[in-house]
Amino acid sequence: MTQEFSRIETYFAPLAGEAGLGLRDDAAVFAPPPGRELVLTTDQMLEGVHFLSGDDPALIARKLLRRNLSDLAAMGAAPLGYLLTTALPPELPEAWLARFAEGLATDQEIFGIKLFGGDSSSSKHGIALTATLLGSVAPGMALRRNGASAGDGIWVTGTIGDAALGLEARRGHLAGAHQYLVKRSMLPTPRIGLALAGIAAAAIDVSDGLVQDLGHMARGAGLSAVIRADMVPSSPEAAALGEAFLETRLTGGDDYELILAVPPGHGEALKEACGALTVTRIGVFQPGEGVHVLSSAETVLEFKQAGWSHF
Amino acid sequence: MTQEFSRIETYFAPLAGEAGLGLRDDAAVFAPPPGRELVLTTDQMLEGVHFLSGDDPALIARKLLRRNLSDLAAMGAAPLGYLLTTALPPELPEAWLARFAEGLATDQEIFGIKLFGGDSSSSKHGIALTATLLGSVAPGMALRRNGASAGDGIWVTGTIGDAALGLEARRGHLAGAHQYLVKRSMLPTPRIGLALAGIAAAAIDVSDGLVQDLGHMARGAGLSAVIRADMVPSSPEAAALGEAFLETRLTGGDDYELILAVPPGHGEALKEACGALTVTRIGVFQPGEGVHVLSSAETVLEFKQAGWSHF
Repeated sequence: MTQEFSRIETYFAPLAGEAGLGLRDDAAVFAPPPGRELVLTTDQMLEGVHFLSGDDPALIARKLLRRNLSDLAAMGAAPLGYLLTTALPPELPEAWLARFAEGLATDQEIFGIKLFGGDSSSSKHGIALTATLLGSVAPGMALRRNGASAGDGIWVTGTIGDAALGLEARRGHLAGAHQYLVKRSMLPTPRIGLALAGIAAAAIDVSDGLVQDLGHMARGAGLSAVIRADMVPSSPEAAALGEAFLETRLTGGDDYELILAVPPGHGEALKEACGALTVTRIGVFQPGEGVHVLSSAETVLEFKQAGWSHF
Repeated sequence: MTQEFSRIETYFAPLAGEAGLGLRDDAAVFAPPPGRELVLTTDQMLEGVHFLSGDDPALIARKLLRRNLSDLAAMGAAPLGYLLTTALPPELPEAWLARFAEGLATDQEIFGIKLFGGDSSSSKHGIALTATLLGSVAPGMALRRNGASAGDGIWVTGTIGDAALGLEARRGHLAGAHQYLVKRSMLPTPRIGLALAGIAAAAIDVSDGLVQDLGHMARGAGLSAVIRADMVPSSPEAAALGEAFLETRLTGGDDYELILAVPPGHGEALKEACGALTVTRIGVFQPGEGVHVLSSAETVLEFKQAGWSHF
């Protein structure tokens, strides 16, 4: 057996679900859940772009799954399984792969998904990973990003900006350890499993930063989004860093929280659907265009960058 | 708009099917064909591993789709659509992307598929591409690679070894131009659409080389595969290169022809199912293990490499 096949046998076959046919076939075969629509998403992670060479392979694996799971969460979909491609440098130690598979196994268990199939290749330049996730929704119930109406409240789950600050901490730009923020950057929590159908009119996950992703929602609906900076929820650790990091919090990416458009009167139902997870109203969709961030004195704040780039 | 979003709008949104939601959402939403099973496969192509920097981007795009389509063909599945990830160096000219999208459009038309979604990232080291293809089969009718029985004939579609010889030609290892062989290497033809259900008992596509892929079928069935080297069909261009290249033909990959296990008495039905595409019986599955390649004098031929590596 070549190295490729022995690695598939050792590390990936134990992760395979029934659809994966033991990873010994050309493709996976999968009976879709009857009466459901499928939701499909794909995301990649590249060494030097989305993670650093020395990062824990288990956390890389889990973040790869979680970035995709977050896309399913933003559509209101329940996850089913995934396909995975790996491009690995020949000199990569076997222990890296063992630890990577361990991370996959951990999150497969947490999120109730199985490996359906994949492809492995050697790489000449660094590690490249792609996952394609499948989920399902009741027909017609997928949450779109463009469904907001004027007057809908803008709500966010959890706290915003932790991941971007965690990245700053890892880059050595912050004094102190900031373990919580670093963890939020390296192991985000996809907001899978919230019963948002009939409550939220639109949703997106914060991958490129609150301002930019909110901009996608506003543009998709032909509206403007007006939010109050002081209403955007921060974790205690992020808040402790003070106002100097406001722009980082509001424009930094990788939070994987949800931004929701919620019609008036649905706020309590939303809170109930989110249970222990906090949800916070930070603004409102209005006629017009663009994203407008107001101070507590209602003056418009301007940011140097609306978007977000990785390393 | 950032470069990423403007590129999606310009090059990829026109390729999207209904499921792709204009490529403006977090994920694709897809109603699976009722009463069918889904077949899923994913394959990647990396610069310097699966293609060279100067290769025509349209051919790279088409080969990426065709490698995956061939996996669907080997399962007897009809293609539906695909997801695509691209990791591209920032300095890559816009013309590269335009031409790449042109190649996708050409093969979408030929094979009746649409783009469902994807992800794009910048890359620090070369181009990395991954496609995930979806197809469907009637329930229980997916062709597996492990379904052969002792006595089943070993059949192959088309001609074997052209792609490996084409690669040799591109590497400058062959005297002369060999356009046909080069084309077979750069633009393989996936054997989609053959009605093999009820005729073939097992199938695999030749991606890693005839001997190695046949080995997968034999091992999966707990059998040995015995083939006659002189019965393996060659194109006239490959045959003209003579016996010196026998090992390259039988162990070289990337042909994307099908190897089929066909029970006795099904040969004529197979030929009919394949229509204008030639199918050739090259051997038989027997009790035992391994792949045994016999000369016309029935002596066993030994090869230095059973497998196949890319560039």
